[in-house]
Amino acid sequence: MEGNYLQLSYALDTFYFLMSAVLVMWMAAGFAMLEAGLVRSKNTVEILTKNALLYSVACTAFLIVGYNVMYPGDPINGFIPNLSFLLGADNTVEAVLAGGDDAPYYSGMSDFIFQAVFAAATMSIVSGAIAERMKLWPFLVFAVVMTAFIYPVEGYWKWGGGWLDQLGFQDFAGSVVVHMAGASAALAAVIMVGARKGKYGPNGKINPIPGANLPMATLGMFILWMGWFGFNGGSELMVSNVDEANAVAAIFVNTNAAAAAGMISAALLSKFMFGKTDLTMVLNGALAGLVSITAEPLAPTPGLAMIIGAVGGLIVVLSVVLMDKMKLDDPVGAISVHGTAGIWGIFAVLFSNSDATFMGQLIGTVATFAWMFIMSIIVLFIIKKTMGLRPTEEEEMEGMDIQECGMEAYPEFDQK
Amino acid sequence: MEGNYLQLSYALDTFYFLMSAVLVMWMAAGFAMLEAGLVRSKNTVEILTKNALLYSVACTAFLIVGYNVMYPGDPINGFIPNLSFLLGADNTVEAVLAGGDDAPYYSGMSDFIFQAVFAAATMSIVSGAIAERMKLWPFLVFAVVMTAFIYPVEGYWKWGGGWLDQLGFQDFAGSVVVHMAGASAALAAVIMVGARKGKYGPNGKINPIPGANLPMATLGMFILWMGWFGFNGGSELMVSNVDEANAVAAIFVNTNAAAAAGMISAALLSKFMFGKTDLTMVLNGALAGLVSITAEPLAPTPGLAMIIGAVGGLIVVLSVVLMDKMKLDDPVGAISVHGTAGIWGIFAVLFSNSDATFMGQLIGTVATFAWMFIMSIIVLFIIKKTMGLRPTEEEEMEGMDIQECGMEAYPEFDQK
Amino acid sequence: MEGNYLQLSYALDTFYFLMSAVLVMWMAAGFAMLEAGLVRSKNTVEILTKNALLYSVACTAFLIVGYNVMYPGDPINGFIPNLSFLLGADNTVEAVLAGGDDAPYYSGMSDFIFQAVFAAATMSIVSGAIAERMKLWPFLVFAVVMTAFIYPVEGYWKWGGGWLDQLGFQDFAGSVVVHMAGASAALAAVIMVGARKGKYGPNGKINPIPGANLPMATLGMFILWMGWFGFNGGSELMVSNVDEANAVAAIFVNTNAAAAAGMISAALLSKFMFGKTDLTMVLNGALAGLVSITAEPLAPTPGLAMIIGAVGGLIVVLSVVLMDKMKLDDPVGAISVHGTAGIWGIFAVLFSNSDATFMGQLIGTVATFAWMFIMSIIVLFIIKKTMGLRPTEEEEMEGMDIQECGMEAYPEFDQK
Repeated sequence: MEGNYLQLSYALDTFYFLMSAVLVMWMAAGFAMLEAGLVRSKNTVEILTKNALLYSVACTAFLIVGYNVMYPGDPINGFIPNLSFLLGADNTVEAVLAGGDDAPYYSGMSDFIFQAVFAAATMSIVSGAIAERMKLWPFLVFAVVMTAFIYPVEGYWKWGGGWLDQLGFQDFAGSVVVHMAGASAALAAVIMVGARKGKYGPNGKINPIPGANLPMATLGMFILWMGWFGFNGGSELMVSNVDEANAVAAIFVNTNAAAAAGMISAALLSKFMFGKTDLTMVLNGALAGLVSITAEPLAPTPGLAMIIGAVGGLIVVLSVVLMDKMKLDDPVGAISVHGTAGIWGIFAVLFSNSDATFMGQLIGTVATFAWMFIMSIIVLFIIKKTMGLRPTEEEEMEGMDIQECGMEAYPEFDQK
Repeated sequence: MEGNYLQLSYALDTFYFLMSAVLVMWMAAGFAMLEAGLVRSKNTVEILTKNALLYSVACTAFLIVGYNVMYPGDPINGFIPNLSFLLGADNTVEAVLAGGDDAPYYSGMSDFIFQAVFAAATMSIVSGAIAERMKLWPFLVFAVVMTAFIYPVEGYWKWGGGWLDQLGFQDFAGSVVVHMAGASAALAAVIMVGARKGKYGPNGKINPIPGANLPMATLGMFILWMGWFGFNGGSELMVSNVDEANAVAAIFVNTNAAAAAGMISAALLSKFMFGKTDLTMVLNGALAGLVSITAEPLAPTPGLAMIIGAVGGLIVVLSVVLMDKMKLDDPVGAISVHGTAGIWGIFAVLFSNSDATFMGQLIGTVATFAWMFIMSIIVLFIIKKTMGLRPTEEEEMEGMDIQECGMEAYPEFDQK
Repeated sequence: MEGNYLQLSYALDTFYFLMSAVLVMWMAAGFAMLEAGLVRSKNTVEILTKNALLYSVACTAFLIVGYNVMYPGDPINGFIPNLSFLLGADNTVEAVLAGGDDAPYYSGMSDFIFQAVFAAATMSIVSGAIAERMKLWPFLVFAVVMTAFIYPVEGYWKWGGGWLDQLGFQDFAGSVVVHMAGASAALAAVIMVGARKGKYGPNGKINPIPGANLPMATLGMFILWMGWFGFNGGSELMVSNVDEANAVAAIFVNTNAAAAAGMISAALLSKFMFGKTDLTMVLNGALAGLVSITAEPLAPTPGLAMIIGAVGGLIVVLSVVLMDKMKLDDPVGAISVHGTAGIWGIFAVLFSNSDATFMGQLIGTVATFAWMFIMSIIVLFIIKKTMGLRPTEEEEMEGMDIQECGMEAYPEFDQK
């Protein structure tokens, strides 16, 4: 009977992991729709192609090497993980039935798929920021290196048990490990490729470049919100007893509350600042609320989760405006949503998790940023010198779609 | 061992609740896409903004006060619930392990999130009916009052154990408590804001105003159908033994059968009445089938579920036509889908659930309608006198998008 | 306690089935979006209507008769199943608690809904191939016969325990039983209706007809990929112990790996062959990878799954080109994705499943193709002689939308 119970518990935790993975995988569609809606129609096919292929590249690179880098059986030290390939065998029944604290309680394969879709999410953040002016295949080469090595090393530092974990850095589901990390790479890429032609005029003039399909973008936001229940909820890693089930449920409530509050606060601030309720700010407000709560979705009360999310929503509006003032061209606001709000989220952990320290959070954030940013700059520099990063001015004017993919997103509709 | 079993059972029921909640949350995207596809392009951003923000407003208002109103620990009487704020602590392990009929068997937080997304769904019904001519922020103020008080009080009457529940009113997952309730508020709003300019010409002429993006609307229907498995399936509230698992499975089968039959019957009637197979009728037929079976998705055989859904599909086509004859302008057919079909659904309970009585169903329906309609009229009247409900004629001509949100949904496409 | 355990295990397996069914149901939306994005705007409403109604028709026909044909309690022989109507009662608690190998371990209703959505998927394959030139109601009549009889008989041969199963034909989740079967019917339909006007010019000229909405098509691919976790993962039919949970997790990993590899290989081949990274090839590459692994998603290592998927991705690009050379007009590439890749998938089983034999796989493939193709030709011939299959040339020029549905998909956008 004890064996029956252990087997059934293992099955439930594995199934919960797999359902969480499906939800996070679905976020790939969310990023694709969000970005496809927020770029111009002439660059839509290309951004769709990037989003589709980056998901595939990330899953493949993470399968071949990234997962083992991030979770090395035998790490070299707290900074350097190790290198091995593909996946080992899954847990045996005997190991599970042994019971005790060390016994596996869910399938290793389910852990892999859950982690793999996180790697893809990290890379999706980059694609939005460099939209409309970075060539497809150089981007994909960057995606390979990012998801095979750069992200997994940083992930190892915290979630693989490396030095940041030993230091006490607290990041439950990845406000920094995933979101700010992706935003750091995105910032490096934005600096390396430069702004879109015509975005910044003379005398500090900023030309808005509206997205071509706002319903698509809104769909993307809803998909991401839905997927986030898997992202944060699955990060509890267990559901099979009363305390764990309560924890997963609390994470769902807090994740939802923070997103809702982030959307509302961004809407209000947008209405106050611009006189209009800017839909892109509304969407990014929700996403910023989600990023903000991701570092600690369990410990806060729902009331505190609302406050954390609401502040995230305010921050993202200001950050988007500031980024433009700094001439950092981010067509979808990815750096603000995942980076600025991610930093807020990691320090907001201090309000509810007594294990977190200001210094621990600061070191984790700075180290993650430095690693992601510098490694990205190096890799992008090499790609720039070999493959080139950016299409010619004529190609950019014509649009990436014809150039890279030989087709149009909406070939039948007359364009202004 | 008994403790292990109770804990695992609690975990499974909680997880089932959470997955159901994710599916119902996803319906918010369904409503958004359906409505965004069925309005004109000049009002698309605004309806997207409404749908996104109403979900956030509903979740927030329900968290702060609505949930406690609907499920008061200590109600004043069967009509008046009580008032308290935020959420209490979740169940302790001790309470669960006590076992017995009174012991909690799933997380209270999972119940909250499941109920919160129901409140949002109720409000989504309103946004469709008043599309294209109600100002954004007045709508959101209405959403606050609706989801914090009006809907929860009515919900308390039935699901919180109030007077309608004591009376024997039977409404399993909310044909009336959610759908007709939302439609009643929508009807009030339609009467208060009036028809869109140009919809009804002189001499009883009805001008069709086609939606701008039918693929979006179709996507919305599929999302709603998918989400309905959580809506009805989760309303069983338990899955953890043979009888309950069979019940949830039967609900899935019946929900799907009713939707399918509703779609087919609406398609046939549309082809018969108009000579064409009107896609909007096809979509609304499926939704009407879903609404019809929602009052009792468990007791019918699948054959009966098909019939209930098929009648719902016929009713919605006739209701849409009739509503236009009555000059009640409902751009997406929300009142017909959720109201007319909801009334059919509540009386269809009499065919399979012997606990239901005609008088019980009638009183429940009339009382719910009266409460929702009158309260909505009052609140909307106050908003009209203070903030105003409707844009000026010029603003309406130009479109809500520029006016309210300062942007266009499809800025690059030339419009006829 | 034993009883408690059996009940909880039954509940978990049932819930896993139901969640899998939701994911497969969602594939109906995926097919709808993929096809709506890949046809011209003048045929978009009609293809949406087909996809919506075929799902409803399939579920209804499968409920009334198809399920019993496919899984007859009392088959006549290995070729001919039997005929009965609607569904019987679900399992009793007593039967479950009896335990042992013959005891039911999940709800029969959950099995039905899972199988019903498979029938719908089979039919969805056909709708894409005959898009833009087959009349709506004749198509739906074909859908009735297909999902009530033709598909269930063939399904019985393998999954219902008929002669192909007895012969040792191995097809885990339906590379042939579902995908190639659907493609065989699609091929028959393409031959019967002929190519779209203007697709093939004189002197072997092939005129590309681009799809009107590539973001929609991309969304469709993501939905299908997501749904495939239910399609393949649910086909394990059990999750409730360590070995089964590991198996479902391995299926998730392999399914994802094959899809990713298929997308990447198709992208590379497309870039190599055409000089451009064709998004439609990228999408179809992922789907081909998914179809390829569907015949055996459990036995391969993830590395082998990648190879199987990658070959599928290459095959689909070549098959699409070849189909056009043969003047078989398939607007979305459905026959290549589900047929050609399905055949590859069924023989790829030989690499990892030692129970499979070359002759068994060959006979299963040939018999399934012959049955589906010949029966489809016969039924379509009868429909052609009675209702007609194709609109007039003028109607086809004007578009199916106005003709069949009386409305346009994007009525406000000016068209080139």
